Amino acid sequence: MPHPFDQLNLEEVRGSHSVKWSLFPEDVLPLWVADMDYPIAEPIAQAIQARLSKRIGYPQGAGDPELLDAIIAKQERLGLKGLQRENLWLTSSVVPGIYASVLALSSVGEEVITQVPVYHPFLLALSDYGRVTKANPMQPGASGWEIDFEHLESLVTPATRLLMLCNPQNPTGRVFTRSELEKLAEFALEHRLWVMVDELWADLIYEGEHVPFASLCEEIAQRTVTLTGPCKAFNTAGLGGGVAISHNRAILERMQNVSKGVGGHPNVLSMAAWLAALQHGQPWLRETLAYLKANRDFLSRFLAEKLPEVGYIPPQATYLAWLDFRALGLEDPHKFALEQAKVALNDGAIFGEGFKGYLRLNFATSRPLLQEALERLAGALKASMVDDR
Amino acid sequence: MPHPFDQLNLEEVRGSHSVKWSLFPEDVLPLWVADMDYPIAEPIAQAIQARLSKRIGYPQGAGDPELLDAIIAKQERLGLKGLQRENLWLTSSVVPGIYASVLALSSVGEEVITQVPVYHPFLLALSDYGRVTKANPMQPGASGWEIDFEHLESLVTPATRLLMLCNPQNPTGRVFTRSELEKLAEFALEHRLWVMVDELWADLIYEGEHVPFASLCEEIAQRTVTLTGPCKAFNTAGLGGGVAISHNRAILERMQNVSKGVGGHPNVLSMAAWLAALQHGQPWLRETLAYLKANRDFLSRFLAEKLPEVGYIPPQATYLAWLDFRALGLEDPHKFALEQAKVALNDGAIFGEGFKGYLRLNFATSRPLLQEALERLAGALKASMVDDR
Repeated sequence: MPHPFDQLNLEEVRGSHSVKWSLFPEDVLPLWVADMDYPIAEPIAQAIQARLSKRIGYPQGAGDPELLDAIIAKQERLGLKGLQRENLWLTSSVVPGIYASVLALSSVGEEVITQVPVYHPFLLALSDYGRVTKANPMQPGASGWEIDFEHLESLVTPATRLLMLCNPQNPTGRVFTRSELEKLAEFALEHRLWVMVDELWADLIYEGEHVPFASLCEEIAQRTVTLTGPCKAFNTAGLGGGVAISHNRAILERMQNVSKGVGGHPNVLSMAAWLAALQHGQPWLRETLAYLKANRDFLSRFLAEKLPEVGYIPPQATYLAWLDFRALGLEDPHKFALEQAKVALNDGAIFGEGFKGYLRLNFATSRPLLQEALERLAGALKASMVDDR
Repeated sequence: MPHPFDQLNLEEVRGSHSVKWSLFPEDVLPLWVADMDYPIAEPIAQAIQARLSKRIGYPQGAGDPELLDAIIAKQERLGLKGLQRENLWLTSSVVPGIYASVLALSSVGEEVITQVPVYHPFLLALSDYGRVTKANPMQPGASGWEIDFEHLESLVTPATRLLMLCNPQNPTGRVFTRSELEKLAEFALEHRLWVMVDELWADLIYEGEHVPFASLCEEIAQRTVTLTGPCKAFNTAGLGGGVAISHNRAILERMQNVSKGVGGHPNVLSMAAWLAALQHGQPWLRETLAYLKANRDFLSRFLAEKLPEVGYIPPQATYLAWLDFRALGLEDPHKFALEQAKVALNDGAIFGEGFKGYLRLNFATSRPLLQEALERLAGALKASMVDDR
């Protein structure tokens, strides 16, 4: 029996006006921006509907207390303990939290370290506000994409102030181990760095275990702001909703101050959706994770069999595949995929300097559509090689 | 037969976690922050529900094109013509638009003119970001609260850069006439000021006619950003949703730049709600306006009969009453209302210097609850006068 996610009602999906499905012509399969093509969980839809029967006046500034408590309970389960409501600041989504942490925890001209490739808003926040990016390219190793600790050390100057981390990592899908994170923590403590960690993907792990960075020790908790939200695991990107978490309340206050007035207030339906996700979303999440994992494995087999020239390490988390097209000798793989294969992927170049030739593929779509996209890519590559002869 | 709005399910209302209904103990009647105690319009609830069946992925950066077109059509009907989609910038709500316009259209230390009393985020945006407030107190006159044009002229210095206007005016409920607005426009042109006009209340007018400030002439359109949104007329404050409109695209670009990354993206359910309000909300709005007008008239009669010492000019628009309690000889009318009458109103002092002793009352509640609040106020005042003897 086909899985319900195997069916994709294209009319519905296109009718959503999402950027994923509207940026490109209809003959292009969009496997780029990070949302899933699946309907939201039924308990979330029901909670939004139920919320409508109450009033939708201005929420409390800090957000619904029930939601704050549910986020705290969730973080406890993940291993981040000792949080009170005042250690949480609800943001309209995660990106504003990234920007606010850059604005609050570094000054113009100061240096910020991040592993690359990385979720491009990290890099945009730095360049938009005149911070200097010190990129530490990850290296393929025994555990997959690994942190180059030697090079990391060499990046530090007196102007280094902030370490930005994405874990699980977008776009490589790495789940950093406790020992890797402990080494990063030592590094941050030794050089007295603030740490912003984006843990938005923590619920979408296939192998490995999520270790909240701020849970490593109390000194690290005092230097760290953790960003997360419901949108990746529960596919609610269009609803926004994010939270900045820190045991050091002063960090949150500084983040609030640098974005004072421009960030808006929490959205009552987004809060209702998030609460429902935390309270009743596990069965849907479990099923979705299984489907995504099977998609990942399908992708891995397909690449091994039909596109062995594409460099690829299967992601331990996320629904993103980080593909190295450099060996294929294409001038611009992103353009090639879009124009020749009619498949829209993310251009690797946006994830950091030196990643031209890489592509990020979002496999959170129906299996048939994933297969079609991959066959289009394989077909176009084959045709181009024939052309070259 | 009682009107459905006469019934107020307190359990539902309190269950919404709104700031209005949760900030004070349950024995206090909350007639303060500007949202209505009525359920949202049925077509809005239905549109949100219908939207859930589509995907809720990331929206297009500029927002849903259908919504943009509906906003343009609505502005055309109000008299603001010649707008294209690129003249609109969707914000998470109106307050971020106020802050972004202050940040974009003035520098630290420069002077900004506004009529007072005024919606307090105008004043907060200025003080939060080091702008100098040049307040022009409105004066009671033949048309109600009037602009003091002579004093206005005296406020201008070389450092004056921006005029902030609220029309219809919160908290006085004035609907400025075309001739008043034309005088303001001449003033702005003569002194080469930018203009930010908050027209959020334009759909809630009992007497008079809304004239969009930017519609006055092309030179003014090039100097003006207009802010509006669905939340006042359609009672969707908890959903956010705002728009900055300008014929001068450069103003919007500057506003986007000063809040880059921290403002978040449009919310898909808020957009669906707003579109439904514009397309199908008129019958609900008409009925609500009639109910509000009757509440206003009830309030006017009550004050005339039982609280004649309270200074009051009936609002031509909004569901706010601006009440002058100064003649009553209370040390702190706001505290008195809250503690002695158990009625929460907004303290006039937040709306501008010199307005201590005024209170803002939100009459968008059920008639019985409005009556009870007024009787509590009258009773407490009577008791306090007996005490004084």
